[in-house]
Amino acid sequence: MNERTLYDGILAGNRRAVARGLTWIDEGAARGKDLAQHLFAHAGKARVIGITGAPGVGKSTLVNTLTISLRRLGHTVGILAVDPSSPFSGGAILGDRIRMQESVDDQKVYMRSLASRGHVGGLSRAAFGAITLLDAAGFDTILVETVGAGQAEVEIMRYAQSVLVVLAPGLGDDIQAIKAGILEIGNVFVVNKSDREGADLTVRSLRGLLSLTPESGEWSPPIVKTEADHDVGIDQVIDAIERHQMYLRQHHRLNDLRYRQAEHVLTQSLDDIRNEVETDFRQQVLWKEAVEKILSGEDASRYARNLFGLWLNATAREE
Amino acid sequence: MNERTLYDGILAGNRRAVARGLTWIDEGAARGKDLAQHLFAHAGKARVIGITGAPGVGKSTLVNTLTISLRRLGHTVGILAVDPSSPFSGGAILGDRIRMQESVDDQKVYMRSLASRGHVGGLSRAAFGAITLLDAAGFDTILVETVGAGQAEVEIMRYAQSVLVVLAPGLGDDIQAIKAGILEIGNVFVVNKSDREGADLTVRSLRGLLSLTPESGEWSPPIVKTEADHDVGIDQVIDAIERHQMYLRQHHRLNDLRYRQAEHVLTQSLDDIRNEVETDFRQQVLWKEAVEKILSGEDASRYARNLFGLWLNATAREE
Repeated sequence: MNERTLYDGILAGNRRAVARGLTWIDEGAARGKDLAQHLFAHAGKARVIGITGAPGVGKSTLVNTLTISLRRLGHTVGILAVDPSSPFSGGAILGDRIRMQESVDDQKVYMRSLASRGHVGGLSRAAFGAITLLDAAGFDTILVETVGAGQAEVEIMRYAQSVLVVLAPGLGDDIQAIKAGILEIGNVFVVNKSDREGADLTVRSLRGLLSLTPESGEWSPPIVKTEADHDVGIDQVIDAIERHQMYLRQHHRLNDLRYRQAEHVLTQSLDDIRNEVETDFRQQVLWKEAVEKILSGEDASRYARNLFGLWLNATAREE
Repeated sequence: MNERTLYDGILAGNRRAVARGLTWIDEGAARGKDLAQHLFAHAGKARVIGITGAPGVGKSTLVNTLTISLRRLGHTVGILAVDPSSPFSGGAILGDRIRMQESVDDQKVYMRSLASRGHVGGLSRAAFGAITLLDAAGFDTILVETVGAGQAEVEIMRYAQSVLVVLAPGLGDDIQAIKAGILEIGNVFVVNKSDREGADLTVRSLRGLLSLTPESGEWSPPIVKTEADHDVGIDQVIDAIERHQMYLRQHHRLNDLRYRQAEHVLTQSLDDIRNEVETDFRQQVLWKEAVEKILSGEDASRYARNLFGLWLNATAREE
């Protein structure tokens, strides 16, 4: 399948094309980067909902029940599960995913895991590309689930319009939340497993913490209690998401986000050129000559400029 | 102090200039990057010894006693303690350092801590710059100490010629060592606190692990038992370092390392240009126009190329 066929297939919502395209993007190579870049202009229609929280709070179950409810409301749902932790935990998570995939299996739902390849920047870029692809493929709602709250997760959540932070009673999440700066990125807080002891305490301490957090605009993040296992509170979560989306529209925040994403595509393109300059010249005599000049005391930046200039000329002739 | 004065002061070995220069480099801003780049051609004379190992194995004490012995042999010693862990642990480590600094205080020793600024790449670059500076300032031996064995430490150890991996009995270091790939980077292994129970077991299990590691060339890493607290085994460590340095010279490895470092200066310069392109254009109309074109479906890479081209022209006129 060449890029053109793939591209057309994705825009037509063809599942095989979507799967292949996501594989390209997950690889992190040039063809995946190009594909995501070319699809970008066709994205921007979906609601992108981030779902994050510590392991064990029930994020997968919540995503599962949310998806079922969203389907009942007539939405098409793309799900992206991003796991930036070590490859060793990948197995268990994949197992969960497969079970979940079965439970929501229909043609209007697409689910995919992105695993860490040991490179935080690469994972974040793959996540952005995958969201772009699912959006361009016509899924009207995209759920992006990340585990924990490290640097990679916070970065990935920046691509989401509405971020759900999921907690559960008795996991000491309040402390964890402050440490990771996760309170600042949450637009809706979900206290899951709320039939467990300590749920009200979790809600109260969360409310206390939120009152200390500087408010961003007029939106004050609601706290929703759920029992995702028993389908309790899911409608309220969807309602909270819809109110947040309305808020974003009314305050033109969706346009701002879309603009920042286009900026991100441009800065990624700057990265790509810098990397291509290195890759294209590394095996050439010119590179070796530059290194030897630097060893003999000449200014490295002059040679770096020179490589950029030569690369621009050489690739301009190709076009 | 301007860059020229600072530069001359550092090359003359002036301590105030060295201190100021290291501060510039630690800041991570343009002036520190330029300084390190300009000093590079004057470096390459020092022996750069990396010292790494888990917390609690006695690295600081070992560095301290090593320094005293090296001074007795007439060497000048620059010490760089790099701590990529969270800023919260900075206090304790700084306390240790100050005590150590007192114990070895003379004009032929210079000691500096580099703290993490939450950016792995930045820390690694600062470490490389600081090594370059101490080398250019005329210290003939540079000890670079890192804590643990994360990605940042392994990267920083690539700048060292001889890497000492320090272990201690009863810390389960053998397991930790395999996990972190630290066996592969060690040229000399030091089992410190060897008066403790289990020292021989640690040596034996280490020897077993090393026998499974593919040998790199003809060098088989020796294992040296020390009690740094009681100045036991330090001469043997220095002897092992000298034998490794001899091996490197005989196999032209020092030239290879120096070549790779010059390559690194060149790739850093490529990074700098990419970042300057973004910084210089971000507030300009051109940037906004490019972003809007990308939003309307045009190819981002064309605009990225254009920015590089414009930047090269604009800065060429400045020179």
